[in-house]
Amino acid sequence: MTNHHIALIPGDGIGAEVLPPALQVLEAVGRRHGFGLTCTLYDWSCARYLREGAMMPEDGLDRLRDKDAILLGAVGYPGVPDHVSLWGLLIPIRRGFRQYVNLRPIRVFDGLDSPLRAAGEVDLVVVRENVEGEYSEIGGRLNRGFPDEFAVQEAVFTRAGVTRVLDYAFDLAARRGGRLTSATKSNGIVHTLPFWDELVAERGAAHPAVTWDQEHIDALAAKFVLDPARFDVVVGSNLFGDILSDLAAAVAGSIGIAPSANLNPERAFPSMFEPVHGSAPDIAGRGIADPLGAIWSAAMMLDHLGHPEAARDVTDAIAAVLAKTDVRTPDLGGTATTAEFTDRLLQIL
Amino acid sequence: MTNHHIALIPGDGIGAEVLPPALQVLEAVGRRHGFGLTCTLYDWSCARYLREGAMMPEDGLDRLRDKDAILLGAVGYPGVPDHVSLWGLLIPIRRGFRQYVNLRPIRVFDGLDSPLRAAGEVDLVVVRENVEGEYSEIGGRLNRGFPDEFAVQEAVFTRAGVTRVLDYAFDLAARRGGRLTSATKSNGIVHTLPFWDELVAERGAAHPAVTWDQEHIDALAAKFVLDPARFDVVVGSNLFGDILSDLAAAVAGSIGIAPSANLNPERAFPSMFEPVHGSAPDIAGRGIADPLGAIWSAAMMLDHLGHPEAARDVTDAIAAVLAKTDVRTPDLGGTATTAEFTDRLLQIL
Ligand SMILES: CC(C)[C@H](C(=O)O)[C@@H](O)C(=O)O
Ligand SMILES: CC(C)[C@H](C(=O)O)[C@@H](O)C(=O)O
Repeated sequence: MTNHHIALIPGDGIGAEVLPPALQVLEAVGRRHGFGLTCTLYDWSCARYLREGAMMPEDGLDRLRDKDAILLGAVGYPGVPDHVSLWGLLIPIRRGFRQYVNLRPIRVFDGLDSPLRAAGEVDLVVVRENVEGEYSEIGGRLNRGFPDEFAVQEAVFTRAGVTRVLDYAFDLAARRGGRLTSATKSNGIVHTLPFWDELVAERGAAHPAVTWDQEHIDALAAKFVLDPARFDVVVGSNLFGDILSDLAAAVAGSIGIAPSANLNPERAFPSMFEPVHGSAPDIAGRGIADPLGAIWSAAMMLDHLGHPEAARDVTDAIAAVLAKTDVRTPDLGGTATTAEFTDRLLQIL
Repeated sequence: MTNHHIALIPGDGIGAEVLPPALQVLEAVGRRHGFGLTCTLYDWSCARYLREGAMMPEDGLDRLRDKDAILLGAVGYPGVPDHVSLWGLLIPIRRGFRQYVNLRPIRVFDGLDSPLRAAGEVDLVVVRENVEGEYSEIGGRLNRGFPDEFAVQEAVFTRAGVTRVLDYAFDLAARRGGRLTSATKSNGIVHTLPFWDELVAERGAAHPAVTWDQEHIDALAAKFVLDPARFDVVVGSNLFGDILSDLAAAVAGSIGIAPSANLNPERAFPSMFEPVHGSAPDIAGRGIADPLGAIWSAAMMLDHLGHPEAARDVTDAIAAVLAKTDVRTPDLGGTATTAEFTDRLLQIL
């Protein structure tokens, strides 16, 4: 039997409440599809930061390096600044393991209300560049505290970094509906984004089976609201991909259940899977967190580990529980606890 | 009688079709409220660029400098790259005349369909920083054409530049509902946006009558879809304000009629008023362009020129024509021509 070694990082708040349901689901499909999981648990979190002064140990990445994948709950705690929790854990893992693709599927499920009158059949994937671009460490401030103070921040787009994520996106589009949209703003941001556009045209020419176009991010955000069903694969820089994936999830009525995969497609390093939702300190500890984001992220992990049928079983079960039952956690308007909802999903599975 | 000297720049495409209706409306309210307009017409456009090699003459800004305001139609023409049309006309005017506030009101009008099931009473203003930030000339490329090619672009946020637009936004919030939301992404973009956040806190303390909060741009974009009615004044950087204003207009069902004002609040230089829509080459020349964006922009100009009652008459007439008639141009689902629609609006006025 294939066995996969998974690093579990529950993190903070509801992170610890959504990973156990995801593991139950993984075990259930593993039995059916003939693979097993060995899990190692890491307490890396804001709680650890408050106790020991660091989100993770200094050799944190080395401890994860030999794992087949990382499943993360959520990170964030009132009183710990975002830049500590993110740049002390999430972003170092993304960058240290060259997880340069951030994949965020968005679907309108039957049984979930979209806020749009006519969302249509939304089924798109945002492919976000995940290690360079606008999220750069390069920059700083001059004249701190004086009237002439200013801050600069350098966005950096490399040919290699953009090309690899574009190739991933074009390949994905070829396997899906054959259409790709690139998010740009080359009319206003005149150095990095014209370069992005050129590389899109170059990679587009290398993928003749894919029809592609590009939209400025302002117009694209509007079109996500006006006609989300027309999109298939949407590729964007680190910042644009971040904005568009949250927006698309809101449009699909699924912001609380959205999953994400931080992929190193070459498998030189472990990839990381995490729900898009945060640690939700307001509801943590009450057993009512929605486990769907974590479960859907676990399905993406299965796909990455080479078990696409098992992954499909999980997403089919998610679709079925939403379409055929009214069991819902409070975030989706129901009264079920995390455990009740998970039980129902396991039955359907 | 007060007289104002207005520079008219119809630009390209439907730009030339939407300014005459705006002028008819301005004349009508001018008669009622006792002011007159003298207009000077400028043919600056992509057409001029194709003919003479430049969007405007070299001394273009000097020719506008003594005007009381600028009313612009739309710029853009197939075959003329965006960076030529924008950086050859629009952006030099915004920057050269220190129009550091870009003001974009968004309302859900009775009689216009929002794509949202429950948009509620959306009535918000996006205040966008308009001359610095992410739209910066600083940057370039190294190793052009080689595998190690890369591009950098520097976002620049100055204390003076951010403070003045925040003060404008806080003052506006104090005159409106007393609430302000700042768009940020200081968790990911760690040099410029933490500085922005600090300045928001500083200016917030100086405006105790205004309740303010901040949201990361990804979450904020989602909230614009999930609950747009909760926002009053939203302030953002050049890029974030651009994205949010298009998104909000889409949510309100009014993307084709959205107006904007590029303001130099100190009145050291003329301000510029322009509909958000583009030159729409696909429908240009057919007399069916929707003049509402230009008319609403003209109303913002009246407000800036010191005629708030006249401005209100115009926006009241817009609301009335939408609520009480079904006369609409094709973009809003009707069959009226630009002239028929304008006549109806003038009757109501
Ligand atoms: C055309 C473009 C440069 C411009 C901008 O982003 O400023 C437009 O989108 C706008 O909002 O006026
Ligand atoms: C928390 C933040 C830095 C992060 C990001 O923008 O990458 C989050 O929004 C996400 O999308 O995973």
